[in-house]
Amino acid sequence: MTTKKSTDAPWIRVLPLGGLGEIGKNMMVLETVDDIVVIDAGVLFPEWNMPGIDVVIPDMDYLEENSARVRALLITHGHEDHIGAVPHLLNRLSVPVFAPAMAHELLHDKLRQARMRDETDLRLIRPGEQHQIGGLTVEWFSVCHSVPDSMGIAIDTPAGVVIHTGDFKIDNSPVIGSPSDLGVIADICQDGALLVMSDSTYAEEEGYCPSDREVVESLPRLIGAAQGRVIVSSFASQIARIQIIADACMAHDRKLCILGRSMVNNTKIARELGHLDISGDLTITSAEANSLPDHKVLILTTGSQGEPQSGLVRMSRNDHRDIRIKDGDTVIMSANTIPGNEMPVNESINDLIRLGARVITNREQRTHVPGHARKEELRMLLNVTRPKYFVPLHGEYRMLKAHADLARATGVEKENVFLLTDGDVLELDDESGKVVDHVEAGHIFVHGLGMWDESGNVVVERRSLSHNGVVTVAFSRNSVDGSLVGKPKIVSAGFVHTEDADQLLREAEDALIPVLDRSLKKPVEWAEVERIVRTTVGSFLNRRTKRRPLIITSAIDV
Amino acid sequence: MTTKKSTDAPWIRVLPLGGLGEIGKNMMVLETVDDIVVIDAGVLFPEWNMPGIDVVIPDMDYLEENSARVRALLITHGHEDHIGAVPHLLNRLSVPVFAPAMAHELLHDKLRQARMRDETDLRLIRPGEQHQIGGLTVEWFSVCHSVPDSMGIAIDTPAGVVIHTGDFKIDNSPVIGSPSDLGVIADICQDGALLVMSDSTYAEEEGYCPSDREVVESLPRLIGAAQGRVIVSSFASQIARIQIIADACMAHDRKLCILGRSMVNNTKIARELGHLDISGDLTITSAEANSLPDHKVLILTTGSQGEPQSGLVRMSRNDHRDIRIKDGDTVIMSANTIPGNEMPVNESINDLIRLGARVITNREQRTHVPGHARKEELRMLLNVTRPKYFVPLHGEYRMLKAHADLARATGVEKENVFLLTDGDVLELDDESGKVVDHVEAGHIFVHGLGMWDESGNVVVERRSLSHNGVVTVAFSRNSVDGSLVGKPKIVSAGFVHTEDADQLLREAEDALIPVLDRSLKKPVEWAEVERIVRTTVGSFLNRRTKRRPLIITSAIDV
Repeated sequence: MTTKKSTDAPWIRVLPLGGLGEIGKNMMVLETVDDIVVIDAGVLFPEWNMPGIDVVIPDMDYLEENSARVRALLITHGHEDHIGAVPHLLNRLSVPVFAPAMAHELLHDKLRQARMRDETDLRLIRPGEQHQIGGLTVEWFSVCHSVPDSMGIAIDTPAGVVIHTGDFKIDNSPVIGSPSDLGVIADICQDGALLVMSDSTYAEEEGYCPSDREVVESLPRLIGAAQGRVIVSSFASQIARIQIIADACMAHDRKLCILGRSMVNNTKIARELGHLDISGDLTITSAEANSLPDHKVLILTTGSQGEPQSGLVRMSRNDHRDIRIKDGDTVIMSANTIPGNEMPVNESINDLIRLGARVITNREQRTHVPGHARKEELRMLLNVTRPKYFVPLHGEYRMLKAHADLARATGVEKENVFLLTDGDVLELDDESGKVVDHVEAGHIFVHGLGMWDESGNVVVERRSLSHNGVVTVAFSRNSVDGSLVGKPKIVSAGFVHTEDADQLLREAEDALIPVLDRSLKKPVEWAEVERIVRTTVGSFLNRRTKRRPLIITSAIDV
Repeated sequence: MTTKKSTDAPWIRVLPLGGLGEIGKNMMVLETVDDIVVIDAGVLFPEWNMPGIDVVIPDMDYLEENSARVRALLITHGHEDHIGAVPHLLNRLSVPVFAPAMAHELLHDKLRQARMRDETDLRLIRPGEQHQIGGLTVEWFSVCHSVPDSMGIAIDTPAGVVIHTGDFKIDNSPVIGSPSDLGVIADICQDGALLVMSDSTYAEEEGYCPSDREVVESLPRLIGAAQGRVIVSSFASQIARIQIIADACMAHDRKLCILGRSMVNNTKIARELGHLDISGDLTITSAEANSLPDHKVLILTTGSQGEPQSGLVRMSRNDHRDIRIKDGDTVIMSANTIPGNEMPVNESINDLIRLGARVITNREQRTHVPGHARKEELRMLLNVTRPKYFVPLHGEYRMLKAHADLARATGVEKENVFLLTDGDVLELDDESGKVVDHVEAGHIFVHGLGMWDESGNVVVERRSLSHNGVVTVAFSRNSVDGSLVGKPKIVSAGFVHTEDADQLLREAEDALIPVLDRSLKKPVEWAEVERIVRTTVGSFLNRRTKRRPLIITSAIDV
């Protein structure tokens, strides 16, 4: 791609990377002729059709190819989908990382674990600070979201002001921190922004997101009304929620037992940063929780998304190390179910009820408020920033589309609203905007120590394995003339019942012998041998079972 | 299990089979000392953690063991989760099948396809009919549900009257058929029922299920307001919905194009039964649909649950044979998403919007009403039947629990409400009720022509394959002394990127040679060889990749 342009007017380009269907969710690139800054570097959790994948990270080839111009990584907030891929990025590029306090501390831990802390230039950002980064002036401003120290970013470029909202809502009564700073945003955008890129997660929802205040009113009431033990599950990074629960424990004379590594770690960081005010004698260990009367105990743990290794899910399966669910327990799910997690969440709720617990979710009572702006808040942001160009970020296509329609309705010109796809390079100047290029922006799948892009066939093969199982065909051939030695051996897994397998596979071996014998008598390529085996065994098995297992062939030269 | 009892008072037993977490959903057994009747024989669709399974059917061993007493299969309505396993049951037991009209016709087709029509004694049932079946008097009564000719069943037993509601709601204005026949039910239960078994699907929901009437009001309005082409997706068996759509086509001067095998087949049956009144010249082929102006066309198809082979999902992927989605199309999802289908449904909605369609779901507008009773209707049923014993059916545990609480609140004694598990044998007489036994009631997984119960390791192996892939180890050994001949060969699928596999697997082969060489020198059981290979190759690969693939070993004797 050229970095020159026909006119001399200053221009910028923006480029979303690796959102896995949610554009710009975990990495956004902004560039000028001289400079590139990257906004966020997050992981995504695999979708339902990507079995056995730990996380998905953005393809960073474009950044590596243009590394000479990359000046900094700018972080908006401390959620995994915004900071989880920072070590991966720093493995490929050496750039300073600017992060607000909570994200800064989480990154500090993350980089230490990856043994990259010492070599990383990690800088703490406070709201209102301005930093000169290459030819760009970058200013962070406070927004409300479901983790403390969330920020949006304003970038003063040669072409005009660019606003990236980060994940945000407009909450007039947040429990931690101050409301989203509309005054500062308005001030920065007093001549109208050149470009606004804004969170679209709840762009289909009418009205305003409810305030944290509603949870402040309802959670303590539910906790106060419970007779026996109370168990609350929430997100570990939802520090405001932890404060509400701690306050409710004080008010209702319960001790607080915090379980789970991420919950303990996030609580520790938030206390150090002064976000969390919990008196030392409020918290207890699980041993103490088990020895106190039930009505004196509240257990706070993870597992609101049905994660198999989480505290609540282990309790629901009755295999938690310390806690056994029993009659009279009240479980409060202080979170919404993230799309895709419905079945595991549902399973754990059924299991908890079966063990005797009463389960209260956000469907029956106000146990949670989300962290994303709805239509009225999005309109407000658009009215305050008055952008010439608009790019909806962070949401599935339907949400981006709803946000795009909203922007047009508030006055952005139809042709100045861009529904981008990951890899689209949008070029803007004060005259016009246009997608001028498309770069590789696939997904990198991470499993264990392995990483591969979509060209690797691992995910596709796993899907096939999971649906039809595998059949392996092994045979020996004479290392001199290539002829078949002994009988071929066929074994299967995930294909047919063990009782039926033996007979069926022996027959398949018998069917294969003459075909293999004949084909190996003449010189033949390995690919052709594989094809013959696959066809012969595949159609034999399909005829008998109406299934198409993956067939793996190996030959041993003896 | 004994069929004798200590006292001489007449007793009955009920036994739910194979609900896959939803008790009694697809098969319920009722028995006396002399007779057994089976209510429904349905399939269930596999859950998220059962990859590659077509359907799940109940374990019918108990019925086969007691086949001498099994008198009949009684069908409540024509949904797959109530009739889908009829051929499987008839393969094992020869009994007459009693079914209401729509179910009767669907079964007729199903049995013909399975080449079992001629030998099956399939009998048509009309509401109000009484049949003497062994020592039992069985009467069917009309209920409203989302397929025509849905019925509940009243069984007069020596111990008293048993009511099985089937799937039902109380709709005062159904589009097809008459309201649920509360008068008949009240008459049958004038002395109070001994036992009521009732649909719990919506037992957590307050109030009444909205009537079909709401869809009659809203769907034609939405169709009338659309400018371009309209595409509606619904369930094929939802005949009332098809009638509403056909009427809307008449009112708004559109022709109706019905696509998809099940949609066409169900429409044909419903017309023959007189349930559906569509004038012949209203319907058109897809070729005609493509040649008419957009505002003259409505396409009705399947795919409301994101099924990969359905009409709407093919359209969303732009690979439907006849129809291309385009700007200006309005897609109406006239169904709710069944739990577990959220992700595929969501994906198809995003794809449709990306192709230019406007998508209207039941979230934004009334496009659908469910077919199951909510709390007020369930209370009404309990009040009319006044049962001594109550068994909530058809729902996840949380719903059964909510329904049980409701029954107790309406006056059923606490100890007379039974939350059963599949396989529980509940024995009742006019004194007391008790779970007296538990029989094998697992699930049979069907894939292609194969079937296996949970003891087969197929599903477990597939789960493992899908998460970690497979590694196959093949080697040759001397058929005389068992010693290793040539080198072992290791191949993988779904495990590592093809680029990395070669080097890694060659190294694993090298690591395996000395170990294998050593172990094969002494006489050794095959299981021990497999263990040694698994340990050696498994730990080598885990060290290098942090993953644990399934390892399959085969030996060829040469």
